[in-house]
Amino acid sequence: MRQGKLLYAQSGGVTAVINATAAAVIETARANGVPVLAGRNGIIGVLREELIDTRKESAAAIAALRHTPGGAFGSCRFKLKSLEQSRAQYERLIDVLRAHDIRYFLYNGGNDSADTSHKISQIAQALDYPLTCIGVPKTVDNDLAVTDCCPGFGSVAKYTALSILEAGYDVESMAESSTKVFIMEVMGRHAGWIAAAAGLAAKNADEPPHLILFPEIAFDEDAFLAKVKATVERVGYCTVVASEGLKNAAGEFLAEAGTRDAFGHSQLGGLAPVLAQLVKSKLGYKYHWALPDYLQRSARHIASQTDFDHATAVGKAAVEMALAGKNASMPVIKRTSDAPYRWKIEAAPLSKVANHEKKLPKSYIRKDGYGITEAARSYLEPLIRGEAYPPYAKDGLPKYVRLKKMLVAKKLPEYVIADK
Amino acid sequence: MRQGKLLYAQSGGVTAVINATAAAVIETARANGVPVLAGRNGIIGVLREELIDTRKESAAAIAALRHTPGGAFGSCRFKLKSLEQSRAQYERLIDVLRAHDIRYFLYNGGNDSADTSHKISQIAQALDYPLTCIGVPKTVDNDLAVTDCCPGFGSVAKYTALSILEAGYDVESMAESSTKVFIMEVMGRHAGWIAAAAGLAAKNADEPPHLILFPEIAFDEDAFLAKVKATVERVGYCTVVASEGLKNAAGEFLAEAGTRDAFGHSQLGGLAPVLAQLVKSKLGYKYHWALPDYLQRSARHIASQTDFDHATAVGKAAVEMALAGKNASMPVIKRTSDAPYRWKIEAAPLSKVANHEKKLPKSYIRKDGYGITEAARSYLEPLIRGEAYPPYAKDGLPKYVRLKKMLVAKKLPEYVIADK
Repeated sequence: MRQGKLLYAQSGGVTAVINATAAAVIETARANGVPVLAGRNGIIGVLREELIDTRKESAAAIAALRHTPGGAFGSCRFKLKSLEQSRAQYERLIDVLRAHDIRYFLYNGGNDSADTSHKISQIAQALDYPLTCIGVPKTVDNDLAVTDCCPGFGSVAKYTALSILEAGYDVESMAESSTKVFIMEVMGRHAGWIAAAAGLAAKNADEPPHLILFPEIAFDEDAFLAKVKATVERVGYCTVVASEGLKNAAGEFLAEAGTRDAFGHSQLGGLAPVLAQLVKSKLGYKYHWALPDYLQRSARHIASQTDFDHATAVGKAAVEMALAGKNASMPVIKRTSDAPYRWKIEAAPLSKVANHEKKLPKSYIRKDGYGITEAARSYLEPLIRGEAYPPYAKDGLPKYVRLKKMLVAKKLPEYVIADK
Repeated sequence: MRQGKLLYAQSGGVTAVINATAAAVIETARANGVPVLAGRNGIIGVLREELIDTRKESAAAIAALRHTPGGAFGSCRFKLKSLEQSRAQYERLIDVLRAHDIRYFLYNGGNDSADTSHKISQIAQALDYPLTCIGVPKTVDNDLAVTDCCPGFGSVAKYTALSILEAGYDVESMAESSTKVFIMEVMGRHAGWIAAAAGLAAKNADEPPHLILFPEIAFDEDAFLAKVKATVERVGYCTVVASEGLKNAAGEFLAEAGTRDAFGHSQLGGLAPVLAQLVKSKLGYKYHWALPDYLQRSARHIASQTDFDHATAVGKAAVEMALAGKNASMPVIKRTSDAPYRWKIEAAPLSKVANHEKKLPKSYIRKDGYGITEAARSYLEPLIRGEAYPPYAKDGLPKYVRLKKMLVAKKLPEYVIADK
């Protein structure tokens, strides 16, 4: 039996496969005789000493996490500030870890979490507490540095390409006498990775999606309307995939600018209705629009097998790296070949991952700015391969699991999170 | 070889499985030696004498229709008026049928199409043209009379229940520090069938969806907000499924009333953002909302097996009824048992189907107006059973098909549709 416990916490927006990572972490730790606690609602639960005892969960329940969406232990949007600004919080974290003999900390999240893991490893060292900190990659945004891709992205990419493919068949059927323009808004506040993935649906010229609006390209209203008009006149209809982070030439988010200008509210959100209204008022076409929102990142029912494999592999590798004492590192996905697609897991230092952002390369966006290139396709396509279907019950719905989430007894005084 | 050809046309909003009906129609007709033409974009194509020659499509292409969403021959939103008002159009239809020796007309649609089929059978008789008219049921709205359910509904029901189930897991993970209220808007302008289906996701108390807003129940803002608040306080978060046809006490659509009042536009659409804004302004909760729109009815990737079986059975039965000369009738689904679920196809007179609307029974809505009853569950649950997965290509997307859609040579003078 090794010394100490392992603490696992989920952070930021969840994905269709973050629980597959969780399952791999717990199963690998169990196989190595290491007890696993989990932060209730992420780092917030760690600060509050709300630690879920995964030993109370059956092997079947943990296995069912592999095919269950959401974040099984709860996640959070909470960023620890710099060591200088929030030293008390970092010290509290170490107090909690020490109180429960936690020697391994696995933080499963995006950029912020990689940064936090890195800082926790530093404060532990400064306080002379023996801790191995591992960042575990996860984000639908696909914007983590070093790793070739992020677990969670492949599944939202598959859902997005599939959704515009299917909706495209629908619109094509209706266009003669009804809907001529269909707009689907997808996630991606800062980078157009998800929007780009939609482009996988179009195998031939003039197949949906006809136009992709990237946050990397300033929105040009006249050019967009001209493209829509030309597409409707040539193809009979036009499908558009728009990234929520689309900006105008002044660098303002179009969704916010649009809703403020036209309606006096800035919190309503929704870029798709703004674009739809523009098409209607300027071109007169009948439109429909969709905004799948959380549906796109929780669609475990059509998760990508590649993504699932990545999510599982980083969970397993994270525990192995922790037990091997590879402090302040992250298991990352290294692509060794596009065709056939081959990949492996490597260890990367957290310092190289934290506070870097992977942008959508310019070479992935078509010269006219409204589609993807072959380079993008070569990168993206392997990530959506395979269908990691969940098992279904006889009632026609997947057998998703809810854990018991029993907390271990607290050992420390109550703690109120000051700046939450 | 039987005399004459069969004409098949698709009408109204398409579904995930209307092409499964089309495949069954064509395959059954082929097996009986009857050539099949199809209206290009529905009845509009028939009026224009734009008739697709399905003999030009391979057996493999027709078989692939079984798993392809959209309407393979094109559909339309075009309603023929009464025989008195539009006699010239009805006569034109008969001219086209006569010119191409069409003796069987199968019209695949909802209420309006059943009515149109009925009228065409009447005008054919009046003009002494030997024609067998069959209505073939299809609508995600599930509002056709006589039939126990409508092909197309089971799949959108499954998608809807599955989507709120998955999004519910996501929101539950995030609620502690982020989104507390999630609103998903679903189709259903006049009846809450699809909204009701979302209720299947909740197996136990306080599971998503927590609140369903039916178009049958006038929206009570105060009561709704009180329910949301109580749910967030009790469960930690609240998920809402809202039917697009939700009305206020004055009987106005809330989406239109809301968008008109607040923003001065009535065409923007979207009930979900109106409700979200209400929750934010009155209760202050962070929200997310989704509006899957066409995604819900084109989601062939997760079609219900029961629905697929129904869609196939009505296609086959429609041809058999046509060949048996059962004029002015429709194959309908008759449920013979809830548990185990058993059903069969019967023939119903079009006169009993046309111009009737099947409402969501009051007994299906929970007394408080925000959920479904056991009676609803018994009715709905069999309809979403089973996963009729499409085959996937190696690139991670389904193998959907596009037909050649070659038209037969025209024999009549050009015809301009007057009141389109």
